[in-house]
Amino acid sequence: MPDPDLKTVKACVFDAYGTLFDVFSVAAGVREAIGDKAGTVTAMWRQKQLEYSWLRSLMNAHADFWQVTRDALDFALSAAGNDDPALRDTLLDLYLSLAPYPEVKSVLSALKRAGYRRAILSNGAPVMLDAAVQSAGLDDLLDEVLSVEEVGVFKPAPAVYGIAVDRLGLAPQEICFLSSNAWDAAGAAYFGFRVVWVNRFGQVRERLPGKPLHELKTLDALPGLLGGARGARFASAGSPRRTDFPSIPGSMAIRCRTTCRCCAFPAWRAIRRISTASPCTFRSGAGSSVPTTAAAAGRPTIRTARTISPRPI
Amino acid sequence: MPDPDLKTVKACVFDAYGTLFDVFSVAAGVREAIGDKAGTVTAMWRQKQLEYSWLRSLMNAHADFWQVTRDALDFALSAAGNDDPALRDTLLDLYLSLAPYPEVKSVLSALKRAGYRRAILSNGAPVMLDAAVQSAGLDDLLDEVLSVEEVGVFKPAPAVYGIAVDRLGLAPQEICFLSSNAWDAAGAAYFGFRVVWVNRFGQVRERLPGKPLHELKTLDALPGLLGGARGARFASAGSPRRTDFPSIPGSMAIRCRTTCRCCAFPAWRAIRRISTASPCTFRSGAGSSVPTTAAAAGRPTIRTARTISPRPI
Repeated sequence: MPDPDLKTVKACVFDAYGTLFDVFSVAAGVREAIGDKAGTVTAMWRQKQLEYSWLRSLMNAHADFWQVTRDALDFALSAAGNDDPALRDTLLDLYLSLAPYPEVKSVLSALKRAGYRRAILSNGAPVMLDAAVQSAGLDDLLDEVLSVEEVGVFKPAPAVYGIAVDRLGLAPQEICFLSSNAWDAAGAAYFGFRVVWVNRFGQVRERLPGKPLHELKTLDALPGLLGGARGARFASAGSPRRTDFPSIPGSMAIRCRTTCRCCAFPAWRAIRRISTASPCTFRSGAGSSVPTTAAAAGRPTIRTARTISPRPI
Repeated sequence: MPDPDLKTVKACVFDAYGTLFDVFSVAAGVREAIGDKAGTVTAMWRQKQLEYSWLRSLMNAHADFWQVTRDALDFALSAAGNDDPALRDTLLDLYLSLAPYPEVKSVLSALKRAGYRRAILSNGAPVMLDAAVQSAGLDDLLDEVLSVEEVGVFKPAPAVYGIAVDRLGLAPQEICFLSSNAWDAAGAAYFGFRVVWVNRFGQVRERLPGKPLHELKTLDALPGLLGGARGARFASAGSPRRTDFPSIPGSMAIRCRTTCRCCAFPAWRAIRRISTASPCTFRSGAGSSVPTTAAAAGRPTIRTARTISPRPI
């Protein structure tokens, strides 16, 4: 049944690993390689992958997710008493061709038919995401594949969620964000997205600020929750892709460095399109930025309040 | 045997939880309260406590460590299927009177005799640290008890390690930092401290940037590693405490906001004492700031390079 709180939604943005792609699908390959330690190694690999992404972000020592994934595997194998480099390479290869969850294709297709834009927003490095999307055959079902590499910091930094706002040209409340990671769901909700937590693993909710609107077991119920008919009106306006932005008349590319909550992180210098006739501005309050471009109207609009000094690239 | 790489050290700065205080000493109390699930609850409590500190820091949603500790316990108890509020209060009380590890008092005493300054630098909220220090009878053995609450972000953010640099009036390489948490040891080493990892739990090293100089099983070997006689010369200059700073003649309080690696984090606005006769300056390079006060000389000195604009509070 459609949820009225989701009536503002124009796009669905998905976390990748654990949400669309089954990170535990590598377990079979791991089991074949190292036997009964497979479960421990796979769980430790995932745990350390997340920890290193958080710790490197806090340390101001960013490395891309492929490096983090390798480091995490090194830790997990070392803790299991196995440092074989050939085994490491075999297991890493598995990570580039993760299986999608069974319902992913049908749900993305339904959202496409209903006119909702569809994007991935992931910690993954572009090379990893490209490989996973291609391998799973999802490329025709996604408008955007967005990586944290644009901002050089990992989730749940607000700058990461800001990428989707910028790239899709939508306000946070126009985006429904889906993640199986409870901490990611919390971070996205705290940022201002409409959030559905895909609790695939029956986890206890995290005690963090930012509450998801819904909790689902899989993605199957998502189209019904959004209400298919309501999305259709956006289909007629087309789905602006990243490559459409340069064609907006009267705009220029800038690097922005601001102090609002969604983009104050020092590593984030967002590349934005703004009107050449007016300064770049942000909506104050609620901890979220609104881009200056109104994609539907095809020209820059100013929604707000606090002025910053744009610096041409 | 003394390590030449530690010859610059003038102060020892200790992590608190897991390094000086035994966080697993609550296990007996937990076992008494909930039986055979005690081990799982205690480990999950600690894991979530750390995770929430990292995640809240990245989300720009700081809460103090007492709140984080309560939230983490709520998660752990809920995951164990026990939401009894009375049990929660009982277990939280245990956290305010953690047992120190057996060698802590004797090592701190030896360092005091040898003239090394001794401080705690902890995620803990001041109220927690005060309770733990008092309960363990360590108050006469410490010059400073420093909390991340000064900067509103948790370890391993560089701003946290910068607190010790500021408060002790020492350069990073003059500080020996000790932690049982491998990720904390890595963060502190990456910041520029001389780091000894107290690997109490026989952990595998983390695959993070920042390498500790030494790995010890307990703190027992620390005085020998530093070389007792060499520390003695600092004893004659006294150990300036936090309360000494306001008495420095010709200085003023400022809020600094810089972009060097150790203090660029947006939440950090350090309160510093600087000379009123010259601008606040920082040493460039090596990712570390050097405070403008030379504690030994009792008056401000300027060690370097890059100028920022101080803003009076």
